[in-house]
Amino acid sequence: MAQLAATETLHGDNPAHEARLLIRNGGHKGHTAGMAPGYVQANLAIMPKDYAQEFQTFCQLNPKPCPMLAIGEVGSPHLPTLGADLDLRTDLSGYRVFENGKEIAVTDDVTDYWRDDLVAFPLGCSYSFEDALIRDDIPLRHFERNECVAMYVSNLETKPAGRFHGNTVVSMRPLKPADAIRAVQITSRFPNVHGAPVHIGLPEMIGIDDIEQPVFGGAPPRMKDDEIPVFWACGVTPQVAIEQAKPPFCITHQPGCMLITDLKNSHLSII
Amino acid sequence: MAQLAATETLHGDNPAHEARLLIRNGGHKGHTAGMAPGYVQANLAIMPKDYAQEFQTFCQLNPKPCPMLAIGEVGSPHLPTLGADLDLRTDLSGYRVFENGKEIAVTDDVTDYWRDDLVAFPLGCSYSFEDALIRDDIPLRHFERNECVAMYVSNLETKPAGRFHGNTVVSMRPLKPADAIRAVQITSRFPNVHGAPVHIGLPEMIGIDDIEQPVFGGAPPRMKDDEIPVFWACGVTPQVAIEQAKPPFCITHQPGCMLITDLKNSHLSII
Repeated sequence: MAQLAATETLHGDNPAHEARLLIRNGGHKGHTAGMAPGYVQANLAIMPKDYAQEFQTFCQLNPKPCPMLAIGEVGSPHLPTLGADLDLRTDLSGYRVFENGKEIAVTDDVTDYWRDDLVAFPLGCSYSFEDALIRDDIPLRHFERNECVAMYVSNLETKPAGRFHGNTVVSMRPLKPADAIRAVQITSRFPNVHGAPVHIGLPEMIGIDDIEQPVFGGAPPRMKDDEIPVFWACGVTPQVAIEQAKPPFCITHQPGCMLITDLKNSHLSII
Repeated sequence: MAQLAATETLHGDNPAHEARLLIRNGGHKGHTAGMAPGYVQANLAIMPKDYAQEFQTFCQLNPKPCPMLAIGEVGSPHLPTLGADLDLRTDLSGYRVFENGKEIAVTDDVTDYWRDDLVAFPLGCSYSFEDALIRDDIPLRHFERNECVAMYVSNLETKPAGRFHGNTVVSMRPLKPADAIRAVQITSRFPNVHGAPVHIGLPEMIGIDDIEQPVFGGAPPRMKDDEIPVFWACGVTPQVAIEQAKPPFCITHQPGCMLITDLKNSHLSII
């Protein structure tokens, strides 16, 4: 606890650090949308060293769903470039633990699962570009309703890397046409957090037959007549690729329950 | 003719100059799409001095349909910043002449109509951003078919300026969804030639009931199932505002028959 207090002093009123502490100490459950506004939240995939280089190549070949924000040291649960105190074993409100491509546990603490050969891959998340959309007065339904964004497994194939392959997971936001155009402009500035949409309108073209039936815990979007569906690549895509690659062991975040970092969303804008 | 030869020598193989000469000498009729590739073509509105400041304000308030590329000197048929030899009386393949807001003539030479009180407003044209789209391998149906792009009078109201007001004319290109996203990115770089689209999908939202019935001579787009309609503000908008303002006299280009300038399309990109 002495160490915790020292960290608290060190970080002053850094809201990202405070959010991590809250989650670490069990004070927050469920999705992290809206926590530490303005700070980058990340998807997470943690691979054994045997699979790390293959997975890293998968991310590099598929930068829209899998934009890498950092790469962990082998065996280290820390990512100092994303937060001095950050501990990957305790700082997420939800993890999925996989064995041979099958989920064997959902938990809020992976300390007991940690191993010396694990390599962490934090990946950019749409919360960052949603922050920019909301600052530009573009309404987002799932934000207004405090729901998890609608996600789908599209038929857009990722580029395979070794054993990792599979279809791209996409998130969808219903937008009025003029807002959709503005959203393309805004998110194009943020290639490290999925960038521009991958599809717009016509869900059936990317293999989505029922837009009101999302997967991964997302709420039905309840599309309105004056809205069109806008689709972005999603950082849950590795979880589909993991089901294909079947590594003997790995860990991911639980969709919606992100790693909160000290990076600022606005700093990710390329122009 | 001595002067003409001198001008030819001066310009060397400037394709824009050659295209103007061809039109000036009656060697080209009809729309100018595809002429002098890479060079900026412009919409044109020519107002009597009494209406010029009001019209200029109209353009400044409505920069998406009416992006001003230059402003002529009172009474001058020349625009030296757009081409040293350029002559607004002869260099377009089609003009509309208006009296009191009604078209009284369509001609390819307005020498006999020219007056000492006329002020020319060349306005950016979608041909410039189409050049950028085609260079990026985005197929444009009307280009492939050598047709005039589909144009419509939308229900999007312009901001009024004095006597000038009216709805925005839009041009529409049917695009595959991924191309539509890319087209938003590309055209956003070109604010001086209409910039980003004003609408996407859902034509009925902007007052277009039958997408296969364009106006202003555009060909029916023949939408396909895997395409969405993408709408840009169009430089024909002033012609609708002229019908409202009813200036005693004015001249515009004939839709599709543009002023070819020495500016290069690529130089208009802001990033």
